[in-house]
Amino acid sequence: MKAIYLDYAAATPVSTQVQKAMGPFMQDAFYNPSALYAGAREAKRALEEARSNVSRSIGARPSEVIFTAGGTESANLAIRGIAEAFPEGEIIVSAIEHDAVLKPAKHVGAKIVGVTSKGIVDLGQLQETISDKTVLISVMYVNNEVGSVQPIKEIVDTVAQIRKKRVKKGNSMPLYVHTDACQAPQYLDINIARLGVDLMTLNGGKIYGPKQSGILYHRTGVVLSPQVLGGGQERGYRSGTENVAACVGFAKALELSVNKRAHSVKTVSELAHGFTKELEDKFGAIVNGHRKLRIPNNIHVSFPAVDNERVLFSLDDRGVYAAAGSACSASSEEASHVLLAMGLTEDEARSSIRFSIGVETTRAELDHVIEALDRALKA
Amino acid sequence: MKAIYLDYAAATPVSTQVQKAMGPFMQDAFYNPSALYAGAREAKRALEEARSNVSRSIGARPSEVIFTAGGTESANLAIRGIAEAFPEGEIIVSAIEHDAVLKPAKHVGAKIVGVTSKGIVDLGQLQETISDKTVLISVMYVNNEVGSVQPIKEIVDTVAQIRKKRVKKGNSMPLYVHTDACQAPQYLDINIARLGVDLMTLNGGKIYGPKQSGILYHRTGVVLSPQVLGGGQERGYRSGTENVAACVGFAKALELSVNKRAHSVKTVSELAHGFTKELEDKFGAIVNGHRKLRIPNNIHVSFPAVDNERVLFSLDDRGVYAAAGSACSASSEEASHVLLAMGLTEDEARSSIRFSIGVETTRAELDHVIEALDRALKA
Repeated sequence: MKAIYLDYAAATPVSTQVQKAMGPFMQDAFYNPSALYAGAREAKRALEEARSNVSRSIGARPSEVIFTAGGTESANLAIRGIAEAFPEGEIIVSAIEHDAVLKPAKHVGAKIVGVTSKGIVDLGQLQETISDKTVLISVMYVNNEVGSVQPIKEIVDTVAQIRKKRVKKGNSMPLYVHTDACQAPQYLDINIARLGVDLMTLNGGKIYGPKQSGILYHRTGVVLSPQVLGGGQERGYRSGTENVAACVGFAKALELSVNKRAHSVKTVSELAHGFTKELEDKFGAIVNGHRKLRIPNNIHVSFPAVDNERVLFSLDDRGVYAAAGSACSASSEEASHVLLAMGLTEDEARSSIRFSIGVETTRAELDHVIEALDRALKA
Repeated sequence: MKAIYLDYAAATPVSTQVQKAMGPFMQDAFYNPSALYAGAREAKRALEEARSNVSRSIGARPSEVIFTAGGTESANLAIRGIAEAFPEGEIIVSAIEHDAVLKPAKHVGAKIVGVTSKGIVDLGQLQETISDKTVLISVMYVNNEVGSVQPIKEIVDTVAQIRKKRVKKGNSMPLYVHTDACQAPQYLDINIARLGVDLMTLNGGKIYGPKQSGILYHRTGVVLSPQVLGGGQERGYRSGTENVAACVGFAKALELSVNKRAHSVKTVSELAHGFTKELEDKFGAIVNGHRKLRIPNNIHVSFPAVDNERVLFSLDDRGVYAAAGSACSASSEEASHVLLAMGLTEDEARSSIRFSIGVETTRAELDHVIEALDRALKA
């Protein structure tokens, strides 16, 4: 029996179209794009076309796209790169960031801002935390565990006002906004002009592209210290012989995500709505996170007084793949830092399960999951 | 006409066996290896088998293998990771390192040791440069431009004696040896026990594996600060959802390199010997680097009073892909830092060409290159 996969927030398969786009760069146009002969120039052209394609998908300039080996590296480049460029500067992140932001942020002494019980960053607290030395605010676009969509536009507006005040006061410290948008491209607007952020992290492995592909969008003029030094590729921001296949694959995956967005939103919203209602009605599940400000493919619930690990193993036995939260911390004994930040108790956190569906998910699959859950919860 | 590729030191195609090995992890076993369900455990198993495979190929323990996104990242992890772990420590590198080592080394204030006119690190100068504070010596195994093989064993022996003296003196600063061995696996012994280094960088993109795959070999006990923080993958040394396909591909490429080594050495040595002799006899070419202590697939020569760029373009027109040196600096106006360190003048450096052949290279191809060179040099 084919497994029923409900962990699209953790990983996606490489789509057939993406794999096809990558093919020519494994054996045929395998050349080092920095070399000068005809074959290498062809590889370079493909790389720059991929960059243009990405820039179109997010409404940026090609020169603002830094290809990285995945979302984590991109987030590290943003956080550590700004921290290194502005040693006097202070960094602020939300308490519910993915570890790819939270860990480097803590490493450079960032301040942490809390969230509401619905998993939305506390804007008041954020404003109070901003000081004259704040150089970077990093708040994720969508929380990877509970799916809550963060008020990026409001943060950007607040920052715009502070920047004006700084100019008046003669404070020359810049104030940048970074967002980890890894979960967003299939379902939310990721146009840079509309979002207004200065730095944005995207990850191929979550949008049907290859793993360890991704970008850091880097607005022209943002001062950033490179973290991987060497041959000077990616305009010096990320050295290393370019993985043209992965860059081409990422660009294609992003393009498809954006083009299919309206359809994807409609498809998963309907499924998720029905499934959530069944979980509530049949099992008394409590929805975590915000009901409205939520990415449509995320269903995160608590089953009161139930041990999530036991349920997940039981579902796995029945061919259903779901998660307790971030895959990265799946093997950890600690309760989710996201749920704790939202005010859940450790017991409540340990009774919660994340179902993240995809456009391939079917109603029949979700019916099977309800049956499997019925047995698991009654066992 | 199919191009004649003589730039194997810059990039290699992904071998068919490698591509086949990677296949299942794109669409089928695409799962996040950190998740807990059956499919994810399968991906995890494949990842750990790849790690074991790599460890067998280099005679190390699986836990000593850190998968990275390429050689440059691996070298940066070694250099910046040690520098961050030992802020008081001093780092020494050779003047002919690849920029992947040289740039991060300069960034952390490393001391630079010169080389002989044959491109071999000056051991006397190295010994004089080592102080009580030296924590890391990074010398490449094979120079990527002129192919000279460095005296790693002698460096390791010297370091062993210094370590003993430090223990007696109560100096607790460790002294590690890192080697960038990216060019080595197909032609040289990369067994860790025999080499004796503490850290070693390997790169899939130079050994018929996927680009931006690679490892840092990290001897048990070596203290190293991670450079990419997040979900804690790779035992915390390199966070980010693992690229299982690339890890499996790298492991297969390394295994094939080691298994085929005797054959590869024999094949390319014969070809390179004959080709070098023809270049000397027909065109008065001067061989750069060491004639004996040299990787067998490298032919690096100067054509006195000839502009290498003009020759390379002419060769390109005739379907021959060769290089002036490192691909990374191919578009740079500056003369090679390697050749200048060996004492060549800028003019001599600008008259030199690197031909790096592969096991696929044929005698007939090299005959064609001689013809093409004949026209290019007489034009």
